[in-house]
Amino acid sequence: MSPYEIIARKRDKQKLTAREIDYFISAYLKDKVTDYQITAFLMATYLNGMDSEEISALTKAYIDSGETIDLSDVPGKKVDKHSTGGVGDKVSIVLAPLVAALGVPVPMISGRGLGHSGGTLDKLESIPGFNVNLPVSEFRRLVKTHGLGLIGQTADIVPADKRIYALRDVTATVDNIPLISASIMSKKIAEGIDGLVLDVKYGNGAFMKDPVEAEKLAHSLISIGKEFDKTVVALLTSMEQPLGNKIGNWLEIDECIDCMHGKGPADLREVTLALCSRMLLLGDVANSLEDAWQRCEKALDDGSAFAKFLEISRAQGADISYLEQPEKYPQAAKREVLKAANSGYINSMNTFDIGMASVSLGAGRKRAEDTINPRAGIILRKKCGDAVREGEEILEIHCDDALDTTAILQRLQQAITITEHAPTQQPPLILKEIS
Amino acid sequence: MSPYEIIARKRDKQKLTAREIDYFISAYLKDKVTDYQITAFLMATYLNGMDSEEISALTKAYIDSGETIDLSDVPGKKVDKHSTGGVGDKVSIVLAPLVAALGVPVPMISGRGLGHSGGTLDKLESIPGFNVNLPVSEFRRLVKTHGLGLIGQTADIVPADKRIYALRDVTATVDNIPLISASIMSKKIAEGIDGLVLDVKYGNGAFMKDPVEAEKLAHSLISIGKEFDKTVVALLTSMEQPLGNKIGNWLEIDECIDCMHGKGPADLREVTLALCSRMLLLGDVANSLEDAWQRCEKALDDGSAFAKFLEISRAQGADISYLEQPEKYPQAAKREVLKAANSGYINSMNTFDIGMASVSLGAGRKRAEDTINPRAGIILRKKCGDAVREGEEILEIHCDDALDTTAILQRLQQAITITEHAPTQQPPLILKEIS
Repeated sequence: MSPYEIIARKRDKQKLTAREIDYFISAYLKDKVTDYQITAFLMATYLNGMDSEEISALTKAYIDSGETIDLSDVPGKKVDKHSTGGVGDKVSIVLAPLVAALGVPVPMISGRGLGHSGGTLDKLESIPGFNVNLPVSEFRRLVKTHGLGLIGQTADIVPADKRIYALRDVTATVDNIPLISASIMSKKIAEGIDGLVLDVKYGNGAFMKDPVEAEKLAHSLISIGKEFDKTVVALLTSMEQPLGNKIGNWLEIDECIDCMHGKGPADLREVTLALCSRMLLLGDVANSLEDAWQRCEKALDDGSAFAKFLEISRAQGADISYLEQPEKYPQAAKREVLKAANSGYINSMNTFDIGMASVSLGAGRKRAEDTINPRAGIILRKKCGDAVREGEEILEIHCDDALDTTAILQRLQQAITITEHAPTQQPPLILKEIS
Repeated sequence: MSPYEIIARKRDKQKLTAREIDYFISAYLKDKVTDYQITAFLMATYLNGMDSEEISALTKAYIDSGETIDLSDVPGKKVDKHSTGGVGDKVSIVLAPLVAALGVPVPMISGRGLGHSGGTLDKLESIPGFNVNLPVSEFRRLVKTHGLGLIGQTADIVPADKRIYALRDVTATVDNIPLISASIMSKKIAEGIDGLVLDVKYGNGAFMKDPVEAEKLAHSLISIGKEFDKTVVALLTSMEQPLGNKIGNWLEIDECIDCMHGKGPADLREVTLALCSRMLLLGDVANSLEDAWQRCEKALDDGSAFAKFLEISRAQGADISYLEQPEKYPQAAKREVLKAANSGYINSMNTFDIGMASVSLGAGRKRAEDTINPRAGIILRKKCGDAVREGEEILEIHCDDALDTTAILQRLQQAITITEHAPTQQPPLILKEIS
């Protein structure tokens, strides 16, 4: 067994054994396999695939590369959510306190923005003082005391994924089901969860555009969950347009506060309720989906989700006065408006381009070393299916004073298609449930 | 145009433009593309292929990465030979002086042993004093003065191939027609040749085992030659058993001296004559293949090839007394004999295993830093089709005194199959000519 032979076997479409995969990944972490050998393996895997046994073995090798968090002294079933990512997807911010408020512990380790999609950590950090860089011991204490913790990946948990992800990002080996599956599931399993609800996005703003591919990914993730005795449920939800109306870090926190006051956009509320109610079922605190759904609605409307959000924010160092009075948060220096060029209906949105425009405004990073402007982003005044009159405001952009917005506004205009007649059908917000 | 996009396009089976390939390779040499990005590209190319235009573009990008040798002031058409490599393939040692003696300049830049196959440079260096590490200026002077030069690759010629070859060797991306083609042809074209004769090996000791694959490689190499206005002819020759009877660096020089005295094994003489006569045709010094063949035979039998060999060896620093009296060369400390376990006929040989046994005896390198024992190797007493009696000597091994030869002799015994009846047919030594 040598690194060369393992690469050659995957290159030749042969099935690798768990022993080979484990040897290869652990040799990489010991620097006995080089970055370019791992990359040859990743490209061979991208093009030749892996079966479910190989994917489970890769997931296990990732988990074994670092520490796992033991939450067995926290009573109840620990349940987390993972979204495959999109534009305006702020669900975690509402979901984690909501589910925790209803008695299910949520140990949530999140990521940062990637490409056109935002990241939960960047959103939380737009709240003054909110600290996501906590050690595992403090994370365990938060989950035990408050029923939830919201942190970023530490160096000790799944270090193999951290190193390999950085390589995939620059070698065109990201959007591949076996590699995505091992990356997602290893991190979630290492968190110490019992159950997991997946929000697998499809559509033009998702990493998996085709619903058939998104469903394949969901099945792959569920199948790994079974191997590790975790209950996993997936919802396929639409990313054919941004979720909610606000895109950008603080803008999204602001919209989440609305949602936690029983208000805010209907699509954000619906996806949040759909995911949260499945988490209550996995957490064994509800009898039926209807029962769970109603309890989640109540927790949004009666303020208990928001109270839990204030509690965890304070525990993680935030100045919660900005959450209680969001109007006191400083606004972006420049605000500009995009108007409809003609009358008609919003037919479709290029969600990827809207996400990239938001990154260009300062809400995301083009390179790892870029800094984020927490105030930057986009507020949509219209969504797909809405009627517009010529000259009416479609959206508003927020950014620094110095930024030249000409090209960004142009890209946004091209990203939104207005037609004479209303679109006959909208893609379903929640396409299906898979378990 | 970014490295990422170029990798992604090859990954998605799209055709790359010459501009993209040139950008990618030159960015690599400027360290703007990393080793792991090149490797992702190499694996994607290995699995998705390249068409002839892409291969020509890659060859050109390789050539443009360094200097090319201008031999325009050497009169006549300059013709070289390249073999895809095998076991006991010592043809270059006889061929270069033979062809030069007949008036065709041979600018030959050779390689070292690789895997199970030997290398011309290692063989030449077994001659005391022979210096293959000469600068391009000296190489040009040798070709001009003596009609040939025998050197190794310098750092200035095709540096892209040198760096990329080292990566291919450890990432399982070696045996691939587009990558082999660009690697071979870039180096030969940069040498300043007008014509090239290829010895494309097939069989169990060749890199391309299947004759169909070997023929595909030949067509790919010829097609690149056409793009660069070089006349290229290929012979497909057998590597189903070692060429000649001797394997190992000095042992092969010794057999070449026999050949240049009109003696030595018939298969070595035949392949040498077949390749040399094509070189005379490409060099415009013979009227027909028959004419060329007869002149080559004469140059072996009348000593003129050997005289030229002594001339170039002296010019490159060798002590030619060892070539004039090969019996004075010190013998290996240990010589052992393998005997036939039963009577019958030599049915087949595992040529790869015989090559690897020779490496284990000290005739090659397992790692780049290993040193070679010039006296080590194997002398075959029997070839395929020969009758043997039980207990009769099949081969002799030569090595250092300290080496434990038990496993090596076992591997050699298993590599040679003896059957009761004579094999009905031998694979043709020269399968076909392609041009």
